[in-house]
Amino acid sequence: MVSPIEEELINTEHNNSLFEAEVRKLPLLAYSIFKKGNQVAPADFKETKIALNSCNEPSFKEAFSDLLKSPSVILEAVKSLAPPILNKRVAVLFSGGPAAGGHNVILGIKNVLGKDNILYGIKGGPKGLLDGNLFEIKDEDLNRVTNLGGFDFLGSDRTKIKSKEQFEKVREVVKKFHLNGLIIIGGDDSNTNAAFLAEYLYADGCAVVGVPKTIDGDLQIGAILPISFGFDTATKVYAELVGNILQDTPSSRKYWHFIKLMGRSASHVALEVALQTKPAITFISEEVEEAKITLSQIIDILAKTILARAAKSINHGAVLVPEGLIEFIPDLKDLIKELNDLFGKYQIELDKLDLAKKVDFASGKLTNEALLVFNILPFEIKKMLVMDRDSHGNLQVSKIPTESLLIEMVEKRISEIQADPKKIIELNLECDREDLVKVQEFRFNHISHFFGYEGRCGVPTKFDATYTYNLGLIAGSLAIKGKTGYMAAFTDLASGGKALAIPLAALLNSEIRQGKEEFVIEKALVKTNSPAFQFFKERRDAWAKEDCFASPGPRQLWGPTANQMPFTVILNQGYQELDFTVK
Amino acid sequence: MVSPIEEELINTEHNNSLFEAEVRKLPLLAYSIFKKGNQVAPADFKETKIALNSCNEPSFKEAFSDLLKSPSVILEAVKSLAPPILNKRVAVLFSGGPAAGGHNVILGIKNVLGKDNILYGIKGGPKGLLDGNLFEIKDEDLNRVTNLGGFDFLGSDRTKIKSKEQFEKVREVVKKFHLNGLIIIGGDDSNTNAAFLAEYLYADGCAVVGVPKTIDGDLQIGAILPISFGFDTATKVYAELVGNILQDTPSSRKYWHFIKLMGRSASHVALEVALQTKPAITFISEEVEEAKITLSQIIDILAKTILARAAKSINHGAVLVPEGLIEFIPDLKDLIKELNDLFGKYQIELDKLDLAKKVDFASGKLTNEALLVFNILPFEIKKMLVMDRDSHGNLQVSKIPTESLLIEMVEKRISEIQADPKKIIELNLECDREDLVKVQEFRFNHISHFFGYEGRCGVPTKFDATYTYNLGLIAGSLAIKGKTGYMAAFTDLASGGKALAIPLAALLNSEIRQGKEEFVIEKALVKTNSPAFQFFKERRDAWAKEDCFASPGPRQLWGPTANQMPFTVILNQGYQELDFTVK
Repeated sequence: MVSPIEEELINTEHNNSLFEAEVRKLPLLAYSIFKKGNQVAPADFKETKIALNSCNEPSFKEAFSDLLKSPSVILEAVKSLAPPILNKRVAVLFSGGPAAGGHNVILGIKNVLGKDNILYGIKGGPKGLLDGNLFEIKDEDLNRVTNLGGFDFLGSDRTKIKSKEQFEKVREVVKKFHLNGLIIIGGDDSNTNAAFLAEYLYADGCAVVGVPKTIDGDLQIGAILPISFGFDTATKVYAELVGNILQDTPSSRKYWHFIKLMGRSASHVALEVALQTKPAITFISEEVEEAKITLSQIIDILAKTILARAAKSINHGAVLVPEGLIEFIPDLKDLIKELNDLFGKYQIELDKLDLAKKVDFASGKLTNEALLVFNILPFEIKKMLVMDRDSHGNLQVSKIPTESLLIEMVEKRISEIQADPKKIIELNLECDREDLVKVQEFRFNHISHFFGYEGRCGVPTKFDATYTYNLGLIAGSLAIKGKTGYMAAFTDLASGGKALAIPLAALLNSEIRQGKEEFVIEKALVKTNSPAFQFFKERRDAWAKEDCFASPGPRQLWGPTANQMPFTVILNQGYQELDFTVK
Repeated sequence: MVSPIEEELINTEHNNSLFEAEVRKLPLLAYSIFKKGNQVAPADFKETKIALNSCNEPSFKEAFSDLLKSPSVILEAVKSLAPPILNKRVAVLFSGGPAAGGHNVILGIKNVLGKDNILYGIKGGPKGLLDGNLFEIKDEDLNRVTNLGGFDFLGSDRTKIKSKEQFEKVREVVKKFHLNGLIIIGGDDSNTNAAFLAEYLYADGCAVVGVPKTIDGDLQIGAILPISFGFDTATKVYAELVGNILQDTPSSRKYWHFIKLMGRSASHVALEVALQTKPAITFISEEVEEAKITLSQIIDILAKTILARAAKSINHGAVLVPEGLIEFIPDLKDLIKELNDLFGKYQIELDKLDLAKKVDFASGKLTNEALLVFNILPFEIKKMLVMDRDSHGNLQVSKIPTESLLIEMVEKRISEIQADPKKIIELNLECDREDLVKVQEFRFNHISHFFGYEGRCGVPTKFDATYTYNLGLIAGSLAIKGKTGYMAAFTDLASGGKALAIPLAALLNSEIRQGKEEFVIEKALVKTNSPAFQFFKERRDAWAKEDCFASPGPRQLWGPTANQMPFTVILNQGYQELDFTVK
């Protein structure tokens, strides 16, 4: 016998928590040019005067001869007075790791296509495209996923479409389903792929359109693309957790938390979370590289900050570490390069040695500079540096546990300082002499965390839900208007919105990857001269000295704080408002 | 030059995120009997007919001779018609790990004491009490922390007050500050402590009152104390994260997530999170112990569930593991006991051996039953079992990485099954013969997580904020009315509330700890015959077969889902509503 309340709980299964049921009812806000009564309708696109500098190389011009027939200028979406478009067939896929809001992109596309055109969903990402795994999306299919997180409606994968055969397979699918449009929702690599596909399918009359997704935030282009979708939700998930942990620190009064955050290439996530929560220490990979901050200096910063707080009886704090930090520390990078060269050169000799001997062997061959860094590393890390290699003999840097490396090294440094009163004096801490006893007695208790998967599939913030719905409206419009080779973009987020289309080819840059020239969209890194970084830099000393933290709390879908934008976006875009407005 | 928007961001420092600023403004809901116009006033207490069975041992009756002068019945708070109480002095402290809502307890105490009585805060927990680290709390001190998480207003620690000297120190502090009341906000141990202090200070006229706190939920007493505070917030933080990860699984379609959750003794947290999110597999320690589920059977359950899903092309899922599981697995428990005995007996011999030799030595001495379990353990775990011992030669079980143990063992089991078609058939999977290929080709990708500290200091849910405010009103009333040796309790949460006081002495049980009889409050474990567990048991097979999960989302402070109670509380209390009501 199931009681009424048990029945109610059973009804929450299959994405029907009370929260999900209510979130689905939240209205989808369309930018005005798409509005047509209670419905939405596709926009037209007109050229703006904003030109982008395309690559000038002859090989590039040859590779993109069709796309380059259109001028490299941004298009702006405007209200269409044209008669309704009929009988177009568009397909959409997710590519790469999930990001919050993906479902609303599809909803935007579906709504703008309306009932007179067909939208196909491609199951399982680019691989699904190659396999021709398409199905027609009905309005009712999307009811379940409206405003919900995840990419589960279609699934995703990481297949790269690069070979001639793959391109040809895509063309076959396009022909088989008579596609007029193909929309790729993905990051920098997927949008690079979209550019190539757009060029390849140019003559087939299939418009290929990209939608900028990535929780890392490394697909953003100044004022024309403030941010990729998913970033706001992910950083708000992480910021809540970091805020909770920071709130714990003066409660328990004895822990230093080392928190690793997503961001292998760019530190946008760490910067945003730092601006939201104001922890004692945050490393930004781009600054570390640019200012050539060595590993030893990083340990110095940590030890000095931790002990300066100890002198004030603040025996706690938090350190934010971007996932990719280790690859940006200049002397460590040089060491790794030398080791890779060594392993290339002496592979046969090295293969015969056990780990400890490998460490000795490497020590004997390194340059003085590299040896200096190698020697200060914990033995466990040394072993990893001579052990975990991929098939090319290269180190898989991502496997090195950055936070453990920092913790172990700073622990040692702190002990050394505590053991030698002279060293404590040398730290020049701003404190009274009698407070130095506290420094000596301080016990370094540490806990480490890594927040990653938790942030990819949360229910989107109102910002991401609205942003993605409008990206969908733009992408859908581009696809059925035959505008190929563009990425949908939505900007002016503090003042009602503006819908743009960015020519993908103009975003490509020549890069040498594994000895071969490739045209790719570069990842947007944190600029140290950006307003967001500069603001962080101005405040961080105050945050280091004593607790200044804030708990931004769980993201809210209702109430007075539901419409906040990311702080990095606000600062970098020069917005004067904290809340987004779309109208 | 700081721009206006930068100024606004700087203003969010020091717990002033927009969220925190708005949360502070949320009203504090007092139960009607405490309301006096726009203010609150202390309640009176009358005896109910609900009697509790106290311990009957003579040693107990002697130890609590003073407290036992009052009958062992529950008191109910009723509206007081008595004239205002003046000039009482009450002190309050936090004990143990933080839990959301602690600040609102203090707010409740402060408000019920009003301006005619004094409330002292004790800094740094029980240790602060011993040190006499008291300060007078002013109304304005509490503005900052209203409705906010953490124990940072006072800080906390884990000092146990057990020795005669410590008790005497407390008495000195009580006398020095002329305290009429002492309120201890803590878990089972702290409330045990409160009982002893109440007895000790009986003649001093200082009423000692406990407030039930613990995110683990293991301080709960049927209908008179539905739950401890902090549990709702913590489980909602974890459930969001688990929900996000579950949403990720059918998006990425390739990972099994093993998620360890807080709960060393009791699995209330895992059960609540399971009910909220419906993952494929959840282990409940209490069931494992009671049903004598062996380690090998646990691995069987995992392997079969994982492969049965693989047969349906569901190559993903999540497993919830309570932190303390390993200590409840019967054969593992027996093995550990045998090993502890061995190490006691052969310590000198064992000290001379290296790890591998220790493993061999142990293997040679174990009983057949123990050897059976020992042999199936991964070598790394074997080494840990013969290595990490405390000063008594006992194993520190909590250091064994439960989730890695399970992952490694199930990985091996899956490989064995996949290598032998007969074994696949033996699994008796409900699938077509051709689906068995999928089982063979399945790749077990796994990721592990541990959620702990993230949940202790979040901003309290509306449930915890309201619950704790009323616990504070009750505790404050008890203290200034001189009702010593009671724990504040608040119940009937779906129908307006009811304020109770539970005699602490009646909660004590005789337990043998390290060879000595002690009187302690027993931890409340998950009862396998409870409605919440039974409901879970009925649904879990469906959840295992295919995705049934829900994402309960981030806890909301506004909007239609803000007032939800924990599902385990709803089921166990037999409530017919999902939302709490206090009036």
